Amino acid sequence: MALQTEALVEVMRGGRVESEHRGAIAVVDANGVLIAHSGDVGLVSYLRSSAKPFQLLPLVESGAADRLGFTDAELAVIAGSHSGEPRHVAAVQSILHKIGLGEDALQCGIHVPFNAEAAKALQAAGRKPTALHNNCSGKHAGMLAQAVDRGLSTQDYLDPQHPVQVAIRQRLAELGGIAFEEIGVGVDGCSAPCFALPLQAAALAFARLAEAGRDPTGALRGMRVAGLARVARVMREYPGMVAGEGRLDTDLMRAAPGRVVSKGGAEGYHGLGIVAENGPALGIAIKIGDGDGKRGVHPAVIETLRQMGVLDAAALRALKNYHTWKITNHRGMEVGEVRANFTLVRDQVTYQGEASLGTPSR
Amino acid sequence: MALQTEALVEVMRGGRVESEHRGAIAVVDANGVLIAHSGDVGLVSYLRSSAKPFQLLPLVESGAADRLGFTDAELAVIAGSHSGEPRHVAAVQSILHKIGLGEDALQCGIHVPFNAEAAKALQAAGRKPTALHNNCSGKHAGMLAQAVDRGLSTQDYLDPQHPVQVAIRQRLAELGGIAFEEIGVGVDGCSAPCFALPLQAAALAFARLAEAGRDPTGALRGMRVAGLARVARVMREYPGMVAGEGRLDTDLMRAAPGRVVSKGGAEGYHGLGIVAENGPALGIAIKIGDGDGKRGVHPAVIETLRQMGVLDAAALRALKNYHTWKITNHRGMEVGEVRANFTLVRDQVTYQGEASLGTPSR
Repeated sequence: MALQTEALVEVMRGGRVESEHRGAIAVVDANGVLIAHSGDVGLVSYLRSSAKPFQLLPLVESGAADRLGFTDAELAVIAGSHSGEPRHVAAVQSILHKIGLGEDALQCGIHVPFNAEAAKALQAAGRKPTALHNNCSGKHAGMLAQAVDRGLSTQDYLDPQHPVQVAIRQRLAELGGIAFEEIGVGVDGCSAPCFALPLQAAALAFARLAEAGRDPTGALRGMRVAGLARVARVMREYPGMVAGEGRLDTDLMRAAPGRVVSKGGAEGYHGLGIVAENGPALGIAIKIGDGDGKRGVHPAVIETLRQMGVLDAAALRALKNYHTWKITNHRGMEVGEVRANFTLVRDQVTYQGEASLGTPSR
Repeated sequence: MALQTEALVEVMRGGRVESEHRGAIAVVDANGVLIAHSGDVGLVSYLRSSAKPFQLLPLVESGAADRLGFTDAELAVIAGSHSGEPRHVAAVQSILHKIGLGEDALQCGIHVPFNAEAAKALQAAGRKPTALHNNCSGKHAGMLAQAVDRGLSTQDYLDPQHPVQVAIRQRLAELGGIAFEEIGVGVDGCSAPCFALPLQAAALAFARLAEAGRDPTGALRGMRVAGLARVARVMREYPGMVAGEGRLDTDLMRAAPGRVVSKGGAEGYHGLGIVAENGPALGIAIKIGDGDGKRGVHPAVIETLRQMGVLDAAALRALKNYHTWKITNHRGMEVGEVRANFTLVRDQVTYQGEASLGTPSR
């Protein structure tokens, strides 16, 4: 059965839609109210790396992060899909050093750094990439840290039954408001368990992440918020550790400082938490059906934030190359354009929190 | 407005559809009868490089190919999107030599050869790729040859109003059964005009291409067929010149020798002409809506041919890695699968020509 998606992004050539990227979007507030959507908000989809803030969470909530002396920048790289820049590699090395393990303990596998300069520098030095350069090495180091702190085995930390993985899945279920068993489990590109939730549930988890730092007595009354608030804070304060130079998460959190927590995942997934000045925070989960993480995700993310009034004119200008861009050919001629073309369905048009976010800018 | 597509290819992870590729498919016979389809057969889409057989056609029909002494292998590279292998570059050089032009006459722009060995060899020799390595350099050399033969300007051969381009568009309109003005025109990655036709019209053109060599007194009564037949023949006889080692067009024409003319294009387009033993040939046009030329196109092409009974069990075995494949992660673990999942709607289930193609194999 086909995924229930809507056309979100158009690829134009000669004045005609040549290709399109379809997807589904859920915008939910921290009370769990559906604010806006496109496509099926019940679509069950793997968060992939968009789950990383929640995969970090038990490390912080258990007190292990403090016992082990991790810095905020190190926590941010644990919640990130880093580019393998020198600062990223150094942070992961430091985490491993603090828990007394070597890089051979990382079971994430190896790929060339996302950052082109870092990749070139490695090659120029005649060195091969290691597990440290894997974009998920921070997450893996953080999982190992949870195991070490609890005195658990570090050999099988990727087993979905390992207490570290169970704790993550439990917390994700709580924050998404669904049962533990309802969360689908697959194996990620880095061999860690990956988790599938309905879009609306994932959006709620992101709304709670954004809400935690602002208003622990409001939408999150009675919930544990200190850890959530800290995860959101380190990501916002160290956007360069969450992704890297020239990447959407980093540039978006820099363009809307203090307001947005952004975490992309593979196969066209994107999670966003938005702090509202007035009323509960918003959480957004986006899945591009065909899995295109650039041509699909980038315009969809910026356009969703524009329609929700999250980005002001200055932020939209700073992010304009993620919103729309010209297609040039092998001789540099402009032959087409990539652009968003959708309108979110407003489910709660009079909602106070949303209105407080301002009006859309172009 | 969204493209009218259907889910064709599933990307599985953990037993769940993580992503999907949607598209539209038209299967038409050489009489213009719609035999089977998925999605909107009226979808107007750029053929991109799938138009190359028809872009070669005026060169052959005008007698220029013979006057200029082109070999069949050279004609095949003109109809191809080559990989920049040494044989491809040599063929394009030979064409240019025969028309007295240098590679500086090619206005296709430059990119690294598709073939990894060829790219590595260039780098090892300290050489940069030239326009000759562009996958479209054969097509451009062929367009220049048409201009030279007719005594026309070679400076502006890419202008949509240039007689070479007008002749191509006219012939494409005739073969697709639509008006010249109905064909949409854009600029391709190689700067040549690219042409948009309804899928059903493009499929008809491919059906006529395949039919021409077999039965000039049948479906093509009264049409010029000698040039069409020659284009189809050189592509089938030199499949390695139409694409290159390890690529779908080449491997498909080798696996079904003499039966299939296959030509892929950018942004998820694919055109196929199928010779039938009994009854008119079939033409197939496939457009993957999101433009994915591998994960989208490959399973859709093989599955369409399987359902139409075109590929026998041996051919399906030879092509199985285009039909479905395992997704492995950074540690080589199998974590998912790419596979076709659609059933063509049969528009003419009792049609004689189709029945003659045999029954689907697995």
